[in-house]
Amino acid sequence: MISVVILGAGNVATHLYKAFKTTENVNVLQWYNRNIEAISSFKNEVDITDNLSQLAEADVYIVSVSDDAVKGLTKKLPFENRLVVHTSGTVKISDIDKKHHKGVFYPLQSFSKSAKLDFANVPICIEAITSEDYHLLKDMAIAIGSPTKKVNSDQRKVLHLAAVFVNNFTNQLYRVAHEITESEGAEFDLLKPLILETAKKVQDLSPYMAQTGPAKRDDKKTLDKHTKLLTNPHHKDIYDLLTKSIQHTHGRKKL
Amino acid sequence: MISVVILGAGNVATHLYKAFKTTENVNVLQWYNRNIEAISSFKNEVDITDNLSQLAEADVYIVSVSDDAVKGLTKKLPFENRLVVHTSGTVKISDIDKKHHKGVFYPLQSFSKSAKLDFANVPICIEAITSEDYHLLKDMAIAIGSPTKKVNSDQRKVLHLAAVFVNNFTNQLYRVAHEITESEGAEFDLLKPLILETAKKVQDLSPYMAQTGPAKRDDKKTLDKHTKLLTNPHHKDIYDLLTKSIQHTHGRKKL
Ligand SMILES: NC(=O)c1ccc[n+]([C@@H]2O[C@H](COP(=O)([O-])OP(=O)(O)OC[C@H]3O[C@@H](n4cnc5c(N)ncnc54)[C@H](OP(=O)(O)O)[C@@H]3O)[C@@H](O)[C@H]2O)c1
Ligand SMILES: NC(=O)c1ccc[n+]([C@@H]2O[C@H](COP(=O)([O-])OP(=O)(O)OC[C@H]3O[C@@H](n4cnc5c(N)ncnc54)[C@H](OP(=O)(O)O)[C@@H]3O)[C@@H](O)[C@H]2O)c1
Repeated sequence: MISVVILGAGNVATHLYKAFKTTENVNVLQWYNRNIEAISSFKNEVDITDNLSQLAEADVYIVSVSDDAVKGLTKKLPFENRLVVHTSGTVKISDIDKKHHKGVFYPLQSFSKSAKLDFANVPICIEAITSEDYHLLKDMAIAIGSPTKKVNSDQRKVLHLAAVFVNNFTNQLYRVAHEITESEGAEFDLLKPLILETAKKVQDLSPYMAQTGPAKRDDKKTLDKHTKLLTNPHHKDIYDLLTKSIQHTHGRKKL
Repeated sequence: MISVVILGAGNVATHLYKAFKTTENVNVLQWYNRNIEAISSFKNEVDITDNLSQLAEADVYIVSVSDDAVKGLTKKLPFENRLVVHTSGTVKISDIDKKHHKGVFYPLQSFSKSAKLDFANVPICIEAITSEDYHLLKDMAIAIGSPTKKVNSDQRKVLHLAAVFVNNFTNQLYRVAHEITESEGAEFDLLKPLILETAKKVQDLSPYMAQTGPAKRDDKKTLDKHTKLLTNPHHKDIYDLLTKSIQHTHGRKKL
């Protein structure tokens, strides 16, 4: 049984808490937040606190607070030589105060408080200094059904950056498609199955192999038609840049 | 029972043929392709031909050939006053020769010959001149389990354009993420659950509501870190443009 104290009450902390609660192998001893109101509804099922000096002794302290707050909060922890991990894609492992055993438990997903999430779909990127800590963090991930991967700080940084491309930027393309369709009274909803299919396709096929369409084929007639349809200059910039990008990838054009 | 002749043997024609074969209400009388070899493996289950003068009489002729070939092929058809439809997102309905009853049966999905496709996930955008033709095309779509939508030519054009954003461009963002991760020896595979989740999220939530991340938050520290990490100037261009786009959408910046 791995004993855990969770610090923070945001999206990630809350999802982790709920996931750990359902497992046999991880015991959440205590939940800390600077603002106790945020976790008060859980007071009957777990020891809650807003007082760092009352933190219980545990195998792992999961510091899941805003990136900027990780460093300061780990410094304020009134103990040493215990395993303290953060959950961030961008914060350095060395931002955890040096008096602790340090680790990272980075869940590579997009969390929002309302949406349910199956941790089977949340790869946990683990970084640790000792093999013992690594295996403890791995067991913690396995307990909630997550796949795990040993990821060093440089790799974690690029994964976080790549996540912005496949999550935030992709979502913005959906948004542009929404604007384009609405402007003609067409229904964005009609695109939803295609959105899903596009994401499913690269589960088995590389994005390179999965590519199709006018840019890849260098189908000038369709590219022209599209350029003329695009009345919003900003949409046009995106169209031009990503068309160029596809053509470069598929050997049609120099950048 | 709706009788159908399919013309063309590409991705769409082949998927349509297979889907119609499994239904009760649509009967594929004949399959035409200029190159008969492409459909010869079906000769025991359907009448195949490469001879336009031998086309059977049917309720609908589905011309699913390359966009550029639609006009010429419909002109060459040796009959008139029958319902002839194409399956293209960009070809005008008026490109179908004027001697025919014209229609469009545009499946809004990305087809590839190898991948299986459930037509429940293929919205059919229907355009027709008469209400009778419209209902016949609608029944044909219903027979294969597809949702349908009446879509005029302007709407179809913008849907096709928007499809390029959510399919080809999104796939290119996956490709860039692939390049970024591989360059640091990180695993693209770790991003796959996030890719799926991002697509699933907008099935119920508008892309506007679904957006998160450093650009939307205007989190300058992370945006700076990312910009420094991006060594490929082309990736940086995409990063900058889509970051600006998100900030514009969410009221952070003028374009
Ligand atoms: N959201 C995601 O999709 C996601 C995915 C992977 C990793 N992460 C990482 O997980 C961590 C938490 O992210 P989140 O999205 O869960 O955050 P969040 O929902 O914004 O919540 C932030 C939490 O941090 C606490 N906090 C902020 N400043 C603090 C300070 N100075 N001292 C103590 N506590 C402080 C807040 O406390 P109050 O309740 O008192 O305000 C709140 O509980 C971050 O490192 C983030 O990079 C997030
Ligand atoms: N692929 C998609 O994802 C998709 C999605 C929605 C709509 N569409 C539309 O569906 C239609 C077909 O697309 P596709 O992807 O299935 O095409 P495809 O796989 O490229 O196949 C093209 C077909 O057109 C035939 N063809 C080409 N030029 C011809 C000519 N001059 N005369 C007679 N036949 C000719 C080809 O015959 P040969 O076999 O003899 O070469 C081949 O059978 C297009 O209008 C396309 O815009 C495609």
